[in-house]
Amino acid sequence: MNTQRPLEGITVLDFTRIYSGPYCSMLLGDLGAYVIKVEKKGTGDDSRQFRPKPNIKEGSGYTMYLNRNKKSVELDLKDETARGIIYRLCEKADIVLENYAPGVAKKLGIDYDTLKKYNPQIIYGSISGFGQTGPYRNKAAYDIIAQAMGGYMAVTGPKNGMPIKLGTSVGDSCAGLHMAFALMAAMYYRQRTGIGQYIDISMMDSVFATLENHVMIQTMDHITPVRNGNSNQNAVPFNTFRTSDDYVAIAVANDALFEKFAQAIQRPDLLENPDYKTTNNRKLHEDELTKIVEEWTTKHTTKEVCQIFEDYKIPVGPILGIDQLVEDPHILAREMMIEVDHPYGGKIRMPGCPIKFSETKIDHFAPSSALGADTAQVLREIGGYTQKELEDLAEAGIIPR
Amino acid sequence: MNTQRPLEGITVLDFTRIYSGPYCSMLLGDLGAYVIKVEKKGTGDDSRQFRPKPNIKEGSGYTMYLNRNKKSVELDLKDETARGIIYRLCEKADIVLENYAPGVAKKLGIDYDTLKKYNPQIIYGSISGFGQTGPYRNKAAYDIIAQAMGGYMAVTGPKNGMPIKLGTSVGDSCAGLHMAFALMAAMYYRQRTGIGQYIDISMMDSVFATLENHVMIQTMDHITPVRNGNSNQNAVPFNTFRTSDDYVAIAVANDALFEKFAQAIQRPDLLENPDYKTTNNRKLHEDELTKIVEEWTTKHTTKEVCQIFEDYKIPVGPILGIDQLVEDPHILAREMMIEVDHPYGGKIRMPGCPIKFSETKIDHFAPSSALGADTAQVLREIGGYTQKELEDLAEAGIIPR
Repeated sequence: MNTQRPLEGITVLDFTRIYSGPYCSMLLGDLGAYVIKVEKKGTGDDSRQFRPKPNIKEGSGYTMYLNRNKKSVELDLKDETARGIIYRLCEKADIVLENYAPGVAKKLGIDYDTLKKYNPQIIYGSISGFGQTGPYRNKAAYDIIAQAMGGYMAVTGPKNGMPIKLGTSVGDSCAGLHMAFALMAAMYYRQRTGIGQYIDISMMDSVFATLENHVMIQTMDHITPVRNGNSNQNAVPFNTFRTSDDYVAIAVANDALFEKFAQAIQRPDLLENPDYKTTNNRKLHEDELTKIVEEWTTKHTTKEVCQIFEDYKIPVGPILGIDQLVEDPHILAREMMIEVDHPYGGKIRMPGCPIKFSETKIDHFAPSSALGADTAQVLREIGGYTQKELEDLAEAGIIPR
Repeated sequence: MNTQRPLEGITVLDFTRIYSGPYCSMLLGDLGAYVIKVEKKGTGDDSRQFRPKPNIKEGSGYTMYLNRNKKSVELDLKDETARGIIYRLCEKADIVLENYAPGVAKKLGIDYDTLKKYNPQIIYGSISGFGQTGPYRNKAAYDIIAQAMGGYMAVTGPKNGMPIKLGTSVGDSCAGLHMAFALMAAMYYRQRTGIGQYIDISMMDSVFATLENHVMIQTMDHITPVRNGNSNQNAVPFNTFRTSDDYVAIAVANDALFEKFAQAIQRPDLLENPDYKTTNNRKLHEDELTKIVEEWTTKHTTKEVCQIFEDYKIPVGPILGIDQLVEDPHILAREMMIEVDHPYGGKIRMPGCPIKFSETKIDHFAPSSALGADTAQVLREIGGYTQKELEDLAEAGIIPR
């Protein structure tokens, strides 16, 4: 096992706030990049005021998780001297990341065209709700708007019921993930050609791009996909079902599994019924079959259903709660819950990194910083500022004391 | 604008099926990688038999979309000679990608330890439901199981209602996106160190890693996040609301927006009511305020609500259907709907690439291949096979004629 992490040597100048950008730069930081989080003077990232434990200076639980492995630099970007600091840091950066509304970066003098003058090879990524081009580019966006306008909500929710959004900001994480990949692709390209570039990723595009085959069913079958609860397009029983104490997810994907299923619920007679013989017939008779399944599942606890089906190698799973997940033996074995000894919070438990490398173990998780705590260090290490310059900047109130 | 795409020069040996892996390798192919899709002899990727327009040989709409920009090589991996072909191709590959159940790649003789012997610098990515380690590693997984066991369904659905999964396989796309980033990070690392490696990514980990702050609310506030419809943790009104003809998403994120909102619905009196003065108070009186909002929204169409709120710069959006999205002016302007002239389907409309580069436009979309159509070409181009060798292999029935 190698001690060096994959992205060591990459410097990221990160202007992003809340979730889409910070998730992207957390991935870069977890893998070893030197991430400089530039935060608004006085208040910093808005999510410092989010649950749990809002705290502007020391950081909330939200920022302690998403801003680990990042340096906090506190600057007022409206100040000319502060902008000069950004330009000097930019000369040493490989990547710039921002998720302002389109146009704001330009107003602040940190847009691609400006920063490119200081570092022609810079790779600059912008994440926004609708992107930098197109008729909706200036629409205000939050995750719920991206999930509504990108297509997720049209196909999510109870059959004939209201549209439902995923209960976490997947429009943000999905855009952040596309950006993380795009930034590394641009790094690879730059290593070969010396050419940097600008990357424009939107939440609406990212949501729309991950609709699996829904768009193709529209364009080729001319059938409009609708909300259909948790039932599967083709297979039955492939859904969530009530149990005596909760729900259970069951995925009987094919005829072979249905044979096992009929045995598991001690209803071999179902195999004799032509209505249930093939996947297509089971789909045609989904309502009756669902009744039969729930007659059985509701007589058992979720735990019992899972045990019985697992013995038959039938894909099954409980709806795990967040309280169960943070103690789940598999999540723990996968190191998906880590503990960070935090100067402001003691031992903080948070999600780990879902990327597992054989040669470059991802196990370095530096605690998130207090607002602006790393300003002088970053200016010295990356900007090459002298002690005298730093003292003058602190004296003038440009950087924190 | 440069004509070379960012990942040109990278060769990918892709054993993945259906969605998680193919979405990952589609991103690599769209960005210029040479992707060799190795398909099962006779039937190929199972998704060739999925909607729309199932067709094993020519491909379904599902495979036409997700397997554009890929070569199709048809081989029986259980055959020793066919495995020999894989080893010879592997010598020239940079990346190997697979999403079999853990253990299957080893049975087929295409696992990391085996392929590393033929190419010590290979970067090998495995996507699975639960990963290669941990107590659940051998559990059968489908997207619904990953969404159920990873935490999404615990927080998705109507308040006090049933758990709902996102209506598209986000467990797959989220894992594929983490892998696409991880593969490029490993490429960057290999360029610097010459060291290849193995990457293990699971759907459950990927879902759990994208729960935003839900895990932190559990570990720091000891409050278990639950299903809460579309309402926001903090802000009100920040939800979906009924209109006279459908629903609308509204995001009044702060007090300034609420003032505009009260004016927009001509209820300035709400600003005088202490119950609605601050975000916290509005949250405490969410039910009453929601009634007031829907009294107004249900008197207007979604289109009217959107127009009125946009004039006030209040974040708002309709729940766009897939039928609307494929003709949406913004989606079209963003080139998120492309047309591929397909030898087997005429002009096929499908989603474009959500990554927009300034220097390396992503506009090359080669149609997906018939099953095995590129076998000889790939063996010649990448494996260096002679015409004689190819004829003998076809003669022996190892590769298609």
